[in-house]
Amino acid sequence: MPSAGLLVIGNEILSGKIVDTNSPFLASQLRELGVDLERIVVIPDEIDTIAEETRRFSQSYDHVFTSGGIGPTHDDVTMEAIAQAFGKKLILDEQICARIERTQKEPLNDAMKKMAYMPEGANVIDVSDLWFPVVVVENVHVLPGIPQLFEKKFQSIRDRFAGVPIHLTRIYVTRHESEIAEDLHGLLREFSELMLGSYPRIGEPDYRVMLTLESRDRDYLDRAAESLCARLPSDVVLKVE
Amino acid sequence: MPSAGLLVIGNEILSGKIVDTNSPFLASQLRELGVDLERIVVIPDEIDTIAEETRRFSQSYDHVFTSGGIGPTHDDVTMEAIAQAFGKKLILDEQICARIERTQKEPLNDAMKKMAYMPEGANVIDVSDLWFPVVVVENVHVLPGIPQLFEKKFQSIRDRFAGVPIHLTRIYVTRHESEIAEDLHGLLREFSELMLGSYPRIGEPDYRVMLTLESRDRDYLDRAAESLCARLPSDVVLKVE
Repeated sequence: MPSAGLLVIGNEILSGKIVDTNSPFLASQLRELGVDLERIVVIPDEIDTIAEETRRFSQSYDHVFTSGGIGPTHDDVTMEAIAQAFGKKLILDEQICARIERTQKEPLNDAMKKMAYMPEGANVIDVSDLWFPVVVVENVHVLPGIPQLFEKKFQSIRDRFAGVPIHLTRIYVTRHESEIAEDLHGLLREFSELMLGSYPRIGEPDYRVMLTLESRDRDYLDRAAESLCARLPSDVVLKVE
Repeated sequence: MPSAGLLVIGNEILSGKIVDTNSPFLASQLRELGVDLERIVVIPDEIDTIAEETRRFSQSYDHVFTSGGIGPTHDDVTMEAIAQAFGKKLILDEQICARIERTQKEPLNDAMKKMAYMPEGANVIDVSDLWFPVVVVENVHVLPGIPQLFEKKFQSIRDRFAGVPIHLTRIYVTRHESEIAEDLHGLLREFSELMLGSYPRIGEPDYRVMLTLESRDRDYLDRAAESLCARLPSDVVLKVE
């Protein structure tokens, strides 16, 4: 199965000033696609740190996504870091310059021009009505931090990442985890390939634990869900969905 | 300044089934305390991966926090991984066993007993009315994934992490980043110690960019904010707070 890693770049996340909504968005998108997101790392706007993680991620995962740090200000250093990660030069893309100029209807100042610099040999993927493209260097997809743009840009390249979708069944139970743990062990002995999650919830009036059963094989999943329901006392299962 | 790293453990976050609220909570708490959160990593429920990251974090940061993986089910492997990280044995804590027994008013089953295993030599910090303590191994603070418990437990140990608080001024401006980038550069040339963030927002009717100015020195911060306001055309600053 294709694997993926997400690199979230930004002091604003680490300092608690802005809540990162790009990670949960990408996580559920990749899940739908059947791509295994194996790691999310949040790091500051520091060139060496970003470069090192980019290199590590690029070697470890099939697809790498970065979020943030590609604007026109002093703290936007992602492109420079990615160039460094791959030992490439940062060069001015004339095509993007021309595009910015058309949009702005005035000559580029230094800040705007900064946004047109990218690692040599980068692939540029146009996104419908946005003037700034998605930049791809090796297997690294460079996305912006602003959630509306992150989502729009990911949607526009989404089809490139098709894996084998994972099917999910949720079972809500009315007992504590420690009361059903043995049944879960039994289930896993029978269905060793099942992806099984157990998530206690506090403050839910109707249930105590949400169980998630997942598999890329729909039939296998259905048999596992059936087996679990048979193991649990009947008044324990609130609903299956 | 004290530094910190947060290790979020859980397939449920990576697969997009549960949104991680512990990271933004801890990020703002540490910021208030003046502790520098330098990295957040989200990894799956895999012993070797958790052990490796725990070791790395423990060496890299003054304080390490983990979130998740300490319940009674098959996917709760954090304690085992932390023991492995430090080459310690996992041993049954009789005191915690006794405490669980008192709360449950019945003999411990295997699942409950699992929660009383911890790395040899761990420190145990009691948390008011909760039967399960905060476990500390070297500089690693083991916290649960359930947000209500994560928050309650962190609050109970919060005073251990006092740094020097960081003061923050937010300035909202009505121009695009590229139009003010030069002024920001000028500001940083004058105030090189200033922590300056620039965050464009889409969909805000009144402003385009939120600037954050931060310093541990209140007076320095005030002078920097004043200098920035003087640099920007007066109709550009919507508000300062």
